[in-house]
Amino acid sequence: MKFARLSTPRGVTVAVVDDAAGRYWPLAELAGFAGDMAELAAQYATLRRRLAPRGAGRPLAEAQLLAPLVPRRNLFCVGKNYREHAREFSRSGFDASAAAGEEAPPAPVFFSKPPSTIVGPGGAVSCHPGVTRELDYEAELAVVIGRGGHHIRRADAMAHVWGYTIVNDVTARDLQRQHRQWFLGKSLDTFCPMGPWIVTADEVDGSRLRVRCWINDELRQDASTADLIFDIPALIETLSAGIELHPGDVIATGTPAGVGIGFTPPRFLAAGDRMRIEVEGIGVLENRLA
Amino acid sequence: MKFARLSTPRGVTVAVVDDAAGRYWPLAELAGFAGDMAELAAQYATLRRRLAPRGAGRPLAEAQLLAPLVPRRNLFCVGKNYREHAREFSRSGFDASAAAGEEAPPAPVFFSKPPSTIVGPGGAVSCHPGVTRELDYEAELAVVIGRGGHHIRRADAMAHVWGYTIVNDVTARDLQRQHRQWFLGKSLDTFCPMGPWIVTADEVDGSRLRVRCWINDELRQDASTADLIFDIPALIETLSAGIELHPGDVIATGTPAGVGIGFTPPRFLAAGDRMRIEVEGIGVLENRLA
Repeated sequence: MKFARLSTPRGVTVAVVDDAAGRYWPLAELAGFAGDMAELAAQYATLRRRLAPRGAGRPLAEAQLLAPLVPRRNLFCVGKNYREHAREFSRSGFDASAAAGEEAPPAPVFFSKPPSTIVGPGGAVSCHPGVTRELDYEAELAVVIGRGGHHIRRADAMAHVWGYTIVNDVTARDLQRQHRQWFLGKSLDTFCPMGPWIVTADEVDGSRLRVRCWINDELRQDASTADLIFDIPALIETLSAGIELHPGDVIATGTPAGVGIGFTPPRFLAAGDRMRIEVEGIGVLENRLA
Repeated sequence: MKFARLSTPRGVTVAVVDDAAGRYWPLAELAGFAGDMAELAAQYATLRRRLAPRGAGRPLAEAQLLAPLVPRRNLFCVGKNYREHAREFSRSGFDASAAAGEEAPPAPVFFSKPPSTIVGPGGAVSCHPGVTRELDYEAELAVVIGRGGHHIRRADAMAHVWGYTIVNDVTARDLQRQHRQWFLGKSLDTFCPMGPWIVTADEVDGSRLRVRCWINDELRQDASTADLIFDIPALIETLSAGIELHPGDVIATGTPAGVGIGFTPPRFLAAGDRMRIEVEGIGVLENRLA
């Protein structure tokens, strides 16, 4: 199923979406559920039977898609998790934290993005003039945790994945380099477009999804999550060894090769540029630089 | 004034504390205020007149101090912000992100710690056996934002500081090094003791406070916030240039020299060790490794 957070004529609601039919069904009407997306992730196992669409629903055209989820702590993100991207990034000179000559990291490289970075489908990404001149895109598959837990073993990890969505891990490369740690360059307001919805894990196989990104209709990134250096179970096992995961936590799994700093000279984004990300089985996330 | 979050016989409450007299006054009784500490930070200017203690209050002995605040996004933290500590850290070999030969960073090095790391005064810090073998302490002055804002200029920054507290930026040095970015090694559950309370900025001058840390009664860290490489106005100016700050945001300002990896060989923490931090004008934060 696809679950979206929608701004509708009757207020903001979590809803089941059928995008092919252009309809939505608010969960409050289907199941008397008035919680947010994180609560849905937590209660999905018990609510599930009551969430099948009944009746004609409402026209999606009357609603605006919002980011499906605003987590209660920073998003967990992974860097350099595709081999070709790890190479292009190490060679670009923008990574202050790579060991000399190192192309792929020996362990997952985690960082975070505050919830305040999140914007929805179609939402404007700020250029932050005066703060950065080196804006870059990063198309990523994001995992949404359903059942929480700690010390989750690899073999059990997928049972904790509730669903998937798309994020664009927008990055100010100058800040990423200058401040040594990646946090600041990744955390400027509006630097995390997310959406268009969450597709539950029973409908897609996150281990082999094609991820593509176009900038102004030019294809820049094109890879499969089958190429992740540290796959989704590895990320969940590593994080949850020391951090209890909670329903609604988001893990962005890293970006493939083809980002702006992968070009010589780098091709940074500019005001008005359109960023379009498509992840197979999930949908399209499109945003524009303000 | 000192504001604490207390577990009392009548539930969890935000209260004015007079630790010398051993008394507290719940804000609900003083001012009909039932919000949390972040809401107090936001509304302090208007509530202020009604918050002066009246009457005998209640005995602090009946209450347990909790961490004064659990922010709504990860804590903002700064690394290598005292010159001598930057040197000891660069020389230790544990910093994957330092440029070769670099002793002090050219710009503030920001990272984050999830709210789930926070424990209160006296709270146990987990050793996370099987995850890390290289536990270290970091005594720090933490700033609590009152009035939010973005593009805050240096000259205006202190007007956005509501108060100060103490944090212990507990770190798994092996994870900090192995995972390249510092996030994971800083973010294990219970890795951020905080407290004992928030002292409002009108009562202390955050620019010259003595910060000391003892491990099992041995003095390890002893410095003044006057020695910060990037002072509090610089941190607020740099962060808020791209990230709107909100009431209740916490900025940990960095730790002085004297951490475990500053010794040769490193002196890591072990189960049962007591960590005691005192910041002049604020108080004492003491925690034990479980």
